[in-house]
Amino acid sequence: MTEVRTIRLLLSYAGGEFHGWQSQPGLANVQDTLEAAIEAVCGERVTVHGSGRTDAGVHALGQVAHCELRARLPCAGLQRALNARLAASVRVLRAEEAPPGFHARHDARGKLYRYRIYRESVCPPWLAGYVYHHPYRLDEAAMAAAAPGFLGRHDFRSFAAAPEKRTPPLASCERRLTRSELRREGAELVYEVYGDGFLHHMVRNLVGFLLEIGRGARRGSEIPAVLAARARRAAGPTAPARGLYLVRVDYDGAEAWHEAPPQL
Amino acid sequence: MTEVRTIRLLLSYAGGEFHGWQSQPGLANVQDTLEAAIEAVCGERVTVHGSGRTDAGVHALGQVAHCELRARLPCAGLQRALNARLAASVRVLRAEEAPPGFHARHDARGKLYRYRIYRESVCPPWLAGYVYHHPYRLDEAAMAAAAPGFLGRHDFRSFAAAPEKRTPPLASCERRLTRSELRREGAELVYEVYGDGFLHHMVRNLVGFLLEIGRGARRGSEIPAVLAARARRAAGPTAPARGLYLVRVDYDGAEAWHEAPPQL
Repeated sequence: MTEVRTIRLLLSYAGGEFHGWQSQPGLANVQDTLEAAIEAVCGERVTVHGSGRTDAGVHALGQVAHCELRARLPCAGLQRALNARLAASVRVLRAEEAPPGFHARHDARGKLYRYRIYRESVCPPWLAGYVYHHPYRLDEAAMAAAAPGFLGRHDFRSFAAAPEKRTPPLASCERRLTRSELRREGAELVYEVYGDGFLHHMVRNLVGFLLEIGRGARRGSEIPAVLAARARRAAGPTAPARGLYLVRVDYDGAEAWHEAPPQL
Repeated sequence: MTEVRTIRLLLSYAGGEFHGWQSQPGLANVQDTLEAAIEAVCGERVTVHGSGRTDAGVHALGQVAHCELRARLPCAGLQRALNARLAASVRVLRAEEAPPGFHARHDARGKLYRYRIYRESVCPPWLAGYVYHHPYRLDEAAMAAAAPGFLGRHDFRSFAAAPEKRTPPLASCERRLTRSELRREGAELVYEVYGDGFLHHMVRNLVGFLLEIGRGARRGSEIPAVLAARARRAAGPTAPARGLYLVRVDYDGAEAWHEAPPQL
């Protein structure tokens, strides 16, 4: 009888090539793509569990996933074989044996997301799918000053997609953010947010609200009331997926997994 | 009677989205795309002349083109209207009135090309269409030492695509290179070449030969003999299009056109 190993994968993918992370019939998605590649390489049908779903168009610099595997292939060989078979739009940056019982979603302790807003009047062709091109007037200083207003433990229901979509019940909408920072980086306005978990569309809705502040339609001082409202309509629009990156997922005692490849 | 103006365009495009620059029925190409956009914006059917063709997959940071236009639209308005109509994969960085008789191809005095070779074992998904991924062993020092061997005025017939394709007759295969330099930039090996003109596939064939040197299959000292042979078979393979960028095109008295947008 062959022993089952838990394999942990560090992944990078270009979100524009997929209809999101989650398995769904007839639409290209990262999960099905990985499961098909693993079956082709190992002759084994497995389920690949991600640390969380990413929506269509959202990119991953360092997504983490796991699966249970019987095949005895060494991890380095598995990584090479998967990369040789997968399309260039998804890459296995690392494969390694995880402690038995490791679960990419349940064990995730923190996640870092980044959102890129391109501010020049003309967006270079190769960045079009990788930033939100917003060349119009924004009060960037007001946005930067407001960003830390999301810090701390709050019920983020106002920034979650409508509940019928897939948001958990009200009781579990509390999340703790320990970084919420907006800054200029050359031609881009970059928002970074770190938290112990995120609701569906949460980062894009936080960015959408910051953009409303930049446009002068809302003020940073409204954030406490918007959070207290616990209603999606209290916040702002959802920023486009293409500017969003899952940068890294953190686990207890796995510092090395913090690394992510260079961004474009 | 409306006067005809000569309009000069500075363009950037992602080569992977097009079957090259040149107009051809049934295949997406940059020239047809621009002509259709100009017709939609100005109601005028024009021919757009590029400084030269770029092959399918070759990117442009700063291609230059011109057309003759009767429409009275100001240049800044023309640029905005074209960018609003064009796909994100091609951008008009600038539009301006050129001296009468200006010709993007005939008047070009020099061109700068760049070729990017990605050396890490795993290529990030977003770079896959924008570099040649070559993670295998290369003697980079030997390649760098050999690169200046192409400098000067030579008959580059050995580095031109087969004549039946579209290479000019032997008499006109002389070109003068004033930069030919290979260097490391982080994870990439970057080759830059500046010349008064280039034959079909010439940069990709120069890179192909440098890669042969890197593999140890050829030596830099062979370059004079390869040039003297004036035969395509004397040189090496053609490097893939996706690593190649037309960086800029120079004209007499038009320094401002040297600018190009940031690369990814």
